[in-house]
Amino acid sequence: MTVAEKAARARSASRIMASLSAEQKNHALGRIAAALRDRRTEIESANRSDREAAAREALAEPLAKRLTFEGDKLDQAAIGVESVAALEDPIGGVLGARELDEGLELFRVTVPIGVVGMVFESRPDALVQIASLCLKSGNAVLLKGGAEARNTNRALFTVISEAAGSAGLPDGWMALLESRDDVSEMLAQSDSIDLIIPRGSNEFVQSVMRRTTIPVLGHADGICHVYVDSDADPALAVPVVVDAKTQYPAVCNAAETLLVHADVAARVLPAIAEAMPAVELRACPRALALLPGAVEATESDWRAEYLDLILAVRVVDSADEAITHINRYGSHHTDAIVTANRTRALEFMQRVDSASVMWNCSTRFADGYRYGLGAEVGIATGKIHARGPVGLEGLVTYQWRLFGSGHVVSDYTGSEGRSFTHRIISVDR
Amino acid sequence: MTVAEKAARARSASRIMASLSAEQKNHALGRIAAALRDRRTEIESANRSDREAAAREALAEPLAKRLTFEGDKLDQAAIGVESVAALEDPIGGVLGARELDEGLELFRVTVPIGVVGMVFESRPDALVQIASLCLKSGNAVLLKGGAEARNTNRALFTVISEAAGSAGLPDGWMALLESRDDVSEMLAQSDSIDLIIPRGSNEFVQSVMRRTTIPVLGHADGICHVYVDSDADPALAVPVVVDAKTQYPAVCNAAETLLVHADVAARVLPAIAEAMPAVELRACPRALALLPGAVEATESDWRAEYLDLILAVRVVDSADEAITHINRYGSHHTDAIVTANRTRALEFMQRVDSASVMWNCSTRFADGYRYGLGAEVGIATGKIHARGPVGLEGLVTYQWRLFGSGHVVSDYTGSEGRSFTHRIISVDR
Repeated sequence: MTVAEKAARARSASRIMASLSAEQKNHALGRIAAALRDRRTEIESANRSDREAAAREALAEPLAKRLTFEGDKLDQAAIGVESVAALEDPIGGVLGARELDEGLELFRVTVPIGVVGMVFESRPDALVQIASLCLKSGNAVLLKGGAEARNTNRALFTVISEAAGSAGLPDGWMALLESRDDVSEMLAQSDSIDLIIPRGSNEFVQSVMRRTTIPVLGHADGICHVYVDSDADPALAVPVVVDAKTQYPAVCNAAETLLVHADVAARVLPAIAEAMPAVELRACPRALALLPGAVEATESDWRAEYLDLILAVRVVDSADEAITHINRYGSHHTDAIVTANRTRALEFMQRVDSASVMWNCSTRFADGYRYGLGAEVGIATGKIHARGPVGLEGLVTYQWRLFGSGHVVSDYTGSEGRSFTHRIISVDR
Repeated sequence: MTVAEKAARARSASRIMASLSAEQKNHALGRIAAALRDRRTEIESANRSDREAAAREALAEPLAKRLTFEGDKLDQAAIGVESVAALEDPIGGVLGARELDEGLELFRVTVPIGVVGMVFESRPDALVQIASLCLKSGNAVLLKGGAEARNTNRALFTVISEAAGSAGLPDGWMALLESRDDVSEMLAQSDSIDLIIPRGSNEFVQSVMRRTTIPVLGHADGICHVYVDSDADPALAVPVVVDAKTQYPAVCNAAETLLVHADVAARVLPAIAEAMPAVELRACPRALALLPGAVEATESDWRAEYLDLILAVRVVDSADEAITHINRYGSHHTDAIVTANRTRALEFMQRVDSASVMWNCSTRFADGYRYGLGAEVGIATGKIHARGPVGLEGLVTYQWRLFGSGHVVSDYTGSEGRSFTHRIISVDR
C-alpha cells in the first residue's frame, strides 16, 4: 500500500475514531496493554534482531541502549498505556456556549484533529506512547520510527493494531511507515493529514517545515537561560543554576547560558564554579576575571545548545540587558530569573518571549509530567496551537455547533431586523 | 527600509507591545479614532486619487466600489476602532493554574503572538480594522493591502501610526508593505514573524502556504452544504435552504450544494425551486426528474464554490450518504442538517468534519459578528490554532509562568524524592 493510500485510509478511519465513546477508547487501550504483556515473547524476539543488527553495524552505545525494549521496559510501556486510559477524555468537552437568540444556541466543542503524522526517534516505547495518545484523543495516526528499531516497531504495530481491531477500532486508524521516502510522501498528503509532529533534531524539524504545507508542531533548539539578578539571594541562586545545568544536561530544558548581574557576579560566580567543578565554563571577559578556570566565550557560544556539561557565562548590567540577550540569542523555550524583587521578576516573565518562564526555580521543571499534564505529546517552541510542554490538548481542536429551530440570517438584517442576544450560557466543565 | 528591516523593527516593537496595559492600548485606539475624523480631508483626498486611477484603468465596478473610503465609510471605520477599544483585553488572562508543590505554582497566561503578517484585499477599511485588532491584542503587524488602494493605505498608515506614536506606542509596531515582492520577502522572515494571515482567493492562500515555513491562518474554499433529512419539516427546510443560498450568495458561508433525502425529495425540491426562481439548479439524475427547470450536474459541480445564484442538488438515500458526500467534496467550512430527529442531528454534527455545523438553521450564521466574537480576524478552515470564525483569540497565544522559591528538579528524583501535588488552583476568570 502506498503512503497516499495509507493516509486516505487513515482519513476514513478518523471519521469513526471521532465518534467513539470514552468507554470504547479506554476498552481498546486496556486490550492493547494486555496484548503487550501476552505477546511479550514475540516483541522481545523482534527487539533482539534489532539489537543484533545494531551490534553488527557497530551502532553507537547510547543509540543501541535506547533501542532495548524488553523486560521492565515492556512492562513500563504497558503501564503507560493504562495510565493514558485513566486520563480524562479530551473529546466532547464544551469550551464555551452562547445564546445568539431565543432557541439559537452556539457551542464550541472539543473534537479530534483528525489524522496526525508522527516521526520519532529510535526508542520503540515512543511508538506505544504515541499510538495510545492518538487513540485516546480519537485521532488516526501515521507513524514513522527509527530504522534501527524496524523489527521492534513492526512487532509493536502488529500487536497494537490487532488488539485495537479486536476492540472494534476501524481498520487503518494506525499505519506504519518505514523509509525516508515514506516521510517525504507523507509530507505531501495535505488533503489527508492535519498535523505533522516531528521529533528529532532542530535540522530535521526545520527540513520537515520546509517540505510541507501541513501544519507542523515542532520543537527547535533548547537554548535556556538562567539570569541571576542584582537582588538574588546567592544561597538560592547557586542550587538553581546547578540543577538547571547539571541535573540532566542532555535534554532541551537544561540551561546553556548563565547571565549574572554585575553587582553580584563577584559573589555568585565563584560559588557556582565551585558547586559544579565538572562543568566547563565559557565566559565573557568580565566573567572570565572572576572565573580562573574558565575559557573565553565567542559569539557562537551565546547561540550554542551544548546538551553537555558546558555553560556559557555573561555578566550584564541590568535585567533589561538580560532580557534583550535572551530574546536575541535564546530559542524561546524556557528561561529563569533568580531575584528577591517581585516586580522585576514579573517584568522579566512578561518581556521574555519564551514558552516557559521561571522565577526562582530550575528550567528543568518545563516538562509535561512535572507540569501535571498527564502525558506529553511533545514540546513546542512555536507559538501557534500549543506552546511549551504539550499534553493531549495538542491533539485536539474544536468545532462550532449551532442549534436552531428554523433560524435564518435574513431575519437579522435591515433596520427592522431582529437583534442577537449574545448571552453566555454557563456550562459545567 | 527593506522588508527584513521592517520585520526586525516590528519584532523589537512587539516586546514593548506585549507589556502595554489595557489602558495604554485603549488610549491609543481612542487617539486613532479621533485622528481618522480629524484628518478626514487628507484621507479622502488620497482615496480620490485611487478612485481616479481606478477609473483611468477601467477597474471592474465591484472592485472600484469596494475602494471607496469617504464620508460614512470613514465614520464607520472610526466607530469600529472605538468598538475594538471597548472589547475585553485579551492579554494577561489566566487560562489555568496548578500548584506543582508547596510554593511552586504554575500559571498559563495569555500573551500576544508577537508579529503578524497580514495580506488583505482592496477594501481600505480592512487596514483600519486589522491595525486596531493587532494593537488591542498587543501584536506588531506588517500590512500589505491591495495595489488599487495604495494612496488610501499610505494615508491611513500615516494617520494611524502618528496617532499611535503620540499615545506612546513604540516605533515600528506597524509597517506598510506595498508590492508582491514585499510579500515574498515577508514570507521568508521566519525569525521575525510568527503568523501570516492571508485574506484572498483559495489559490492565493495555497500559494502563501507553499512559500513559507511561518504558520498560516488561512481560509480555503467555502463549499457549504445543507442536508434536508427524511425527518425534515418542509416548512422549516425551505426557508433555511433559501437563506443559506440567496441571502448573500457571494460569501464563503453561503450554501453551494443541497442534499435531500429520497423520502422527502418529491415534496421538498419543487417547493425550494419555487421559492427561489432566480437560482440555477444543477441536479443529479434523481433530482432532475423532480426539477423540470434544472440542468444536469457534473462531477465538478460537487466541488464548485459558485459564490453566485447557482446550487448543486443531489438526492441521497441516508444521512450517512450525506455525511460521506460532505466530508468528501466539502471544504470543512460550514454545513447544516435540517431534521426533527435529534439523535440524527447530533450524529451529523459529530461526524461532519467542518469548522461549523448547524442544526435547523442557515449556514450564513457562521460569522464572527453573529457568533458574538466582538471582532473577526478571519475565518479559518484549517484545524490548528483557531477554527471557523476567529476573533481576537486568534491573535493570542499563551505562556507558562512558574513561580518558585528555590525549587530544583533534583529534589523530585529517586526513590526518596518529593512528589508533585498537581493541585488545581481556582482562578477568577
